Amino acid sequence: MKVNVGMVGCGFMGKAHSNAWHRAHIFFKTGAEAVMKAACDSDKKAVKAMADLWGWQRTETDYRKLVTAEDIDLVDIATPNKAHAEIAIAAAEAGKAILCEKPLAMDLKQALAMVKAVKKNKVLNVVAFNYRRVPALALARQIIQEGRLGRIFHVRACYLQDWIIDPDFPLVWRLQKPIAGSGAHGDLNAHIIDMARFLVGEITEVTGDAKTFIKQRPVLEAITGGLGAKASKKKKGKVTVDDAVIFLAHFRNGAIGTFEATRFAQGRKNGNKIEINGEKGSLAFNFERMNELEFFDAQDPKHLQGWRNIMVTEPGAHPYMHAWWPAGHIIGYEHTAVNLASDILTAMAKKKKSLQPDFADAARTQAVLDSVLVSAKKRAWVKVPKV
Amino acid sequence: MKVNVGMVGCGFMGKAHSNAWHRAHIFFKTGAEAVMKAACDSDKKAVKAMADLWGWQRTETDYRKLVTAEDIDLVDIATPNKAHAEIAIAAAEAGKAILCEKPLAMDLKQALAMVKAVKKNKVLNVVAFNYRRVPALALARQIIQEGRLGRIFHVRACYLQDWIIDPDFPLVWRLQKPIAGSGAHGDLNAHIIDMARFLVGEITEVTGDAKTFIKQRPVLEAITGGLGAKASKKKKGKVTVDDAVIFLAHFRNGAIGTFEATRFAQGRKNGNKIEINGEKGSLAFNFERMNELEFFDAQDPKHLQGWRNIMVTEPGAHPYMHAWWPAGHIIGYEHTAVNLASDILTAMAKKKKSLQPDFADAARTQAVLDSVLVSAKKRAWVKVPKV
Amino acid sequence: MKVNVGMVGCGFMGKAHSNAWHRAHIFFKTGAEAVMKAACDSDKKAVKAMADLWGWQRTETDYRKLVTAEDIDLVDIATPNKAHAEIAIAAAEAGKAILCEKPLAMDLKQALAMVKAVKKNKVLNVVAFNYRRVPALALARQIIQEGRLGRIFHVRACYLQDWIIDPDFPLVWRLQKPIAGSGAHGDLNAHIIDMARFLVGEITEVTGDAKTFIKQRPVLEAITGGLGAKASKKKKGKVTVDDAVIFLAHFRNGAIGTFEATRFAQGRKNGNKIEINGEKGSLAFNFERMNELEFFDAQDPKHLQGWRNIMVTEPGAHPYMHAWWPAGHIIGYEHTAVNLASDILTAMAKKKKSLQPDFADAARTQAVLDSVLVSAKKRAWVKVPKV
Amino acid sequence: MKVNVGMVGCGFMGKAHSNAWHRAHIFFKTGAEAVMKAACDSDKKAVKAMADLWGWQRTETDYRKLVTAEDIDLVDIATPNKAHAEIAIAAAEAGKAILCEKPLAMDLKQALAMVKAVKKNKVLNVVAFNYRRVPALALARQIIQEGRLGRIFHVRACYLQDWIIDPDFPLVWRLQKPIAGSGAHGDLNAHIIDMARFLVGEITEVTGDAKTFIKQRPVLEAITGGLGAKASKKKKGKVTVDDAVIFLAHFRNGAIGTFEATRFAQGRKNGNKIEINGEKGSLAFNFERMNELEFFDAQDPKHLQGWRNIMVTEPGAHPYMHAWWPAGHIIGYEHTAVNLASDILTAMAKKKKSLQPDFADAARTQAVLDSVLVSAKKRAWVKVPKV
Repeated sequence: MKVNVGMVGCGFMGKAHSNAWHRAHIFFKTGAEAVMKAACDSDKKAVKAMADLWGWQRTETDYRKLVTAEDIDLVDIATPNKAHAEIAIAAAEAGKAILCEKPLAMDLKQALAMVKAVKKNKVLNVVAFNYRRVPALALARQIIQEGRLGRIFHVRACYLQDWIIDPDFPLVWRLQKPIAGSGAHGDLNAHIIDMARFLVGEITEVTGDAKTFIKQRPVLEAITGGLGAKASKKKKGKVTVDDAVIFLAHFRNGAIGTFEATRFAQGRKNGNKIEINGEKGSLAFNFERMNELEFFDAQDPKHLQGWRNIMVTEPGAHPYMHAWWPAGHIIGYEHTAVNLASDILTAMAKKKKSLQPDFADAARTQAVLDSVLVSAKKRAWVKVPKV
Repeated sequence: MKVNVGMVGCGFMGKAHSNAWHRAHIFFKTGAEAVMKAACDSDKKAVKAMADLWGWQRTETDYRKLVTAEDIDLVDIATPNKAHAEIAIAAAEAGKAILCEKPLAMDLKQALAMVKAVKKNKVLNVVAFNYRRVPALALARQIIQEGRLGRIFHVRACYLQDWIIDPDFPLVWRLQKPIAGSGAHGDLNAHIIDMARFLVGEITEVTGDAKTFIKQRPVLEAITGGLGAKASKKKKGKVTVDDAVIFLAHFRNGAIGTFEATRFAQGRKNGNKIEINGEKGSLAFNFERMNELEFFDAQDPKHLQGWRNIMVTEPGAHPYMHAWWPAGHIIGYEHTAVNLASDILTAMAKKKKSLQPDFADAARTQAVLDSVLVSAKKRAWVKVPKV
Repeated sequence: MKVNVGMVGCGFMGKAHSNAWHRAHIFFKTGAEAVMKAACDSDKKAVKAMADLWGWQRTETDYRKLVTAEDIDLVDIATPNKAHAEIAIAAAEAGKAILCEKPLAMDLKQALAMVKAVKKNKVLNVVAFNYRRVPALALARQIIQEGRLGRIFHVRACYLQDWIIDPDFPLVWRLQKPIAGSGAHGDLNAHIIDMARFLVGEITEVTGDAKTFIKQRPVLEAITGGLGAKASKKKKGKVTVDDAVIFLAHFRNGAIGTFEATRFAQGRKNGNKIEINGEKGSLAFNFERMNELEFFDAQDPKHLQGWRNIMVTEPGAHPYMHAWWPAGHIIGYEHTAVNLASDILTAMAKKKKSLQPDFADAARTQAVLDSVLVSAKKRAWVKVPKV
Repeated sequence: MKVNVGMVGCGFMGKAHSNAWHRAHIFFKTGAEAVMKAACDSDKKAVKAMADLWGWQRTETDYRKLVTAEDIDLVDIATPNKAHAEIAIAAAEAGKAILCEKPLAMDLKQALAMVKAVKKNKVLNVVAFNYRRVPALALARQIIQEGRLGRIFHVRACYLQDWIIDPDFPLVWRLQKPIAGSGAHGDLNAHIIDMARFLVGEITEVTGDAKTFIKQRPVLEAITGGLGAKASKKKKGKVTVDDAVIFLAHFRNGAIGTFEATRFAQGRKNGNKIEINGEKGSLAFNFERMNELEFFDAQDPKHLQGWRNIMVTEPGAHPYMHAWWPAGHIIGYEHTAVNLASDILTAMAKKKKSLQPDFADAARTQAVLDSVLVSAKKRAWVKVPKV
């Protein structure tokens, strides 16, 4: 079976997704093969270059043409956050399956509109919270579901980066609220909220704080994607998003949690960390060592208890690893996107109706994100709306 | 010079302090030697046993007799929290130098009364926030004072233990509000607040949350100190303190922080961790590897930047280590108390008027502790009173 | 420019090389693009399956046809060790560029014949000691060449795996001397000898020891590649290679070294480790954390000296990383092969005459391998022949 | 019961032993208390200072007087290696119990004479291979004895230091063969040989290599102990011991091993490491993190297997830790000597005839040390004599 993919967006995520569609069916027995049919971006030159590089068969500059094209089965939305809702709703109405980058939307209202659209049109929909497909985190979920942690007491999550500490780093789209919605919050907290929900369950209440350390930055002549962008002028513009957001959370199951997202943690490059402490055991993960999962099992004999460093690379024992290399031959960041693409292709081959995290699920993450920002303004605890 | 010490309390802290007085003048050139003059505890048998073991010259059962004894120069308060204020104020009025265990008091009001007493009576006073004397943390302070971190953005501190997860663990004094004041909060957050203040400066605002996971526990026949106490009956009593307290904080210098203290982090035995991220560098510490300090220096050449694991054991380069062993021959928990005792003896030999952290300093930690509990009740941010 | 590749072999290495040719020109600006022209294996079905999966344009079952085909520019030898020499010499005589898997040959004699053939026919030749293209090891070499280690005293290298500890693991080709030449020695010591030579220089003398822990294993019906092969019968056959080889070494520059290769180190999955100690600094690497390099710089201020964990993922600062992902987004095992393929394509685009490690260089690794086995028999030190 | 101790030697080891006798009976219920009766050293001033500091009741300058004194029960030999045999034999003949520093002797011949003396005189004798009393290594032995490793395949041991890399470091006694016997070999290999024998059993054959990197060093005016000694003149003298010794070993039980001792491993301060790989599990230890033991258990469910970091600080579960502090409150280097002293006092209180490692056991370590040096000269494998 062939799945004709049309992708919108050609920045960092365009590269990661192109690579995923290029390889998923080779490494995994998906029963379906992605055909890289059309790539779309308003920047004609950029999209042409990307298409040439990766073998996208044609290019578009208007997403409307892409989402309504007869030969497209699945629309892959890899644009800046601002455009997600508009494209996704159009794609849903055109009856296409949809993969949408995270965060799902600019706010909860938008997210709910997107959920409504996919439900109404009954299209397969999934959000690229790719860290759920890190084998170590998929294993973490399995361990929890096997009951090895028991009652959960604590979640401790942070996502630490350091790429905008330099005050001369320019005002890229990720630092502009009209395009990005928020800063570290939607970019990084979105991930760890999704991971926490995936592993521990729903968050009911939050109180948080948002901080912008550097308030003015050099303006770029043209807004471009990517992390390596350089400012072309000395003119400064206002940073309209957070540099860091921290918050406390209550979970439905009684656990409490601390969360932190920042781009100002010097020396932390992609420090996406989560620790979960339960009655019978604990788990800890750090994306910078994404092939490892730390597990403490309080059921071990007392003199042998310790934090176990599980190298999650066993083809015969660990999620997704049958597809890759022999034990100890680690995989990297991009494999999370390939793992996700393979799950999508498999779902489509099997005519599955849903795949997690779908838009409805991602809307719940959006509800937490929104509530944190509300709490930061109110300077008080806020209940997360049930959606 | 001799310093006659009278110590009140004979639990875990009594052991650690006895050991400290026993050894400080041997390892350090203090100019003063502690004479272990008198030990005091209401439990006559326990205090006799401790005195015999450690060579305390006499025992008392009434602290009033001890603090007013002519031959006592310094009163060492190693009792449960409840008794700190009463003993300290009496000792101050008797003109004795005072070492008081942390947290300084049951609440800020008490703490301020203690500060008043020591100021009025002009006695040397110091609080046993012993982690300031971990060589790695003393080095951390030195690195910050050398300007190697620049502007501070983030503090991330937690103190994780797991010793009361078992619901059959009994209702020891540390779980009873009238004796302990609070639970993990005063016991563990007190330490990391002190460490954060020591390294980064004052905290101005907080919002927090307190949680008691297990609300009833087996009652002990007699209230005793120590961690190994066992319940003698099936009768249950109410846990009146927190099991965990988490909070967000603003620092005067613009940094933001997350804090967490818990006794429910399965697998974390003494996970007293702090990370500080600044513009030019970062630091990270974990008490379970207390001889190591992690330092990231963004001034290093780009291709060589990395988290440096400094083994803080160099006699010629690291605080306190000239007194101990050759490089790489690590020290342990108890050495923090010996280091502190040596600083006290040195201060007394030199007739110094003050030593940090003194009662006034510890009252500021108490102000943060109190404010967190207020915020948890109000469910909103609270300003920390300046004291 | 197009480079038509013909590959022989379709096991684990066939997969890794296919992936490399598939992606090198996409991620790197090589100036040349690999065309996956023909795949060859004596197992017709297997090679057909691999060709279908990866898009090899045609298949062959006789390597002679492949190496002499007019449309082939480069022959990629990914077969078991036994066949390397024969194919490589034929390819050289046909004037093809050659990429040959490691170890280069079954023994030094064979290796020298191969060197002679490529020299005589002046074809580009390179050996797949892919770990030289791990960014962390390329950085290690750069650090040494920058003079940051000074005089080298020690090399400590081991390559630890555990996949054949089970006595029921079958007699795969890697355990048969006529096909593999040796066991852990040629498979694993070959890598760490190459790495040590790459970083520290030539080895002049060795003394070693070879051990076979399990001497009989279940026979496979058909000899197949791969690690997951299962025995189909209870019949046992003799293991004719080593399970582990350890040796001591002298380097030309005066350093001394210890080496160990084993498939019997329970819990070590791909523990390819090397540590180098010099007068001014030290380096340590472990493939299981291949994105990290440990560096100790004795030129740092004394109180700040420590082992630096360099996350070798900076696009702007670390070898090969400009091609991949943002900092902290790690790469995996397979990327080493892509990095190598990109260097080969670049070399061919630039008409470069040589690329390291070439056959002549790999013959020097073979000389060490052979000398170790001689020393193990003689039970004495043996000089490594200069080749 | 009182045990009157007479100690000879007042360098680094004199300090560590004084501390041990000072504290053993306080922390452990030994049934016997050490009385620090007499300290002896040829340097009258130094021994006086040490006695004053630690409370040794009297001093001697002639060991003969000490070992024959009526009021001495146990002779503690903490001198440079050269003097061990002479003092120990005299002490044995005087009927005293003996604690002797490691290595037992200058060579095997001496060691055997010492064994003969203690056997003939039936005195309790023990050698200060203190690392056997690191709780983590005592636990390692327990794990092996519980059968959790099964058949042992590999031992990988090294002891890495870096304190004499500077060519201006002076010619201290440890660098002079007539006083020290050997260099890193007797100082450091002695420890890891003892540890390997303790954990895995006897070594039957070895082949090794000794290296002196810096052959001339500044002479000291007076030969003194300690690591911090400074050269007072520019005059140079010859280094007559090894700077590093590496060797391969065969164990009686079929395991093979690599060993390395060096004082030239830049950045390794006290890197006393051992790893043991068995059929069912593996263990790894590093003294720089002496409170931790790494354990891999291949009996765990496949998806949960990993290297467990056991924090060996549980009072109720780990050797020696009942005497110290709550879990997670680590101990340090000096505690190994206290643990040993407590075992000696307990043995004497119980009138035990022997305690391990006794002289006979240490002679077997000496046999390995000697054989390695013979093999280094012969440049071939050498059988270790059974003694």
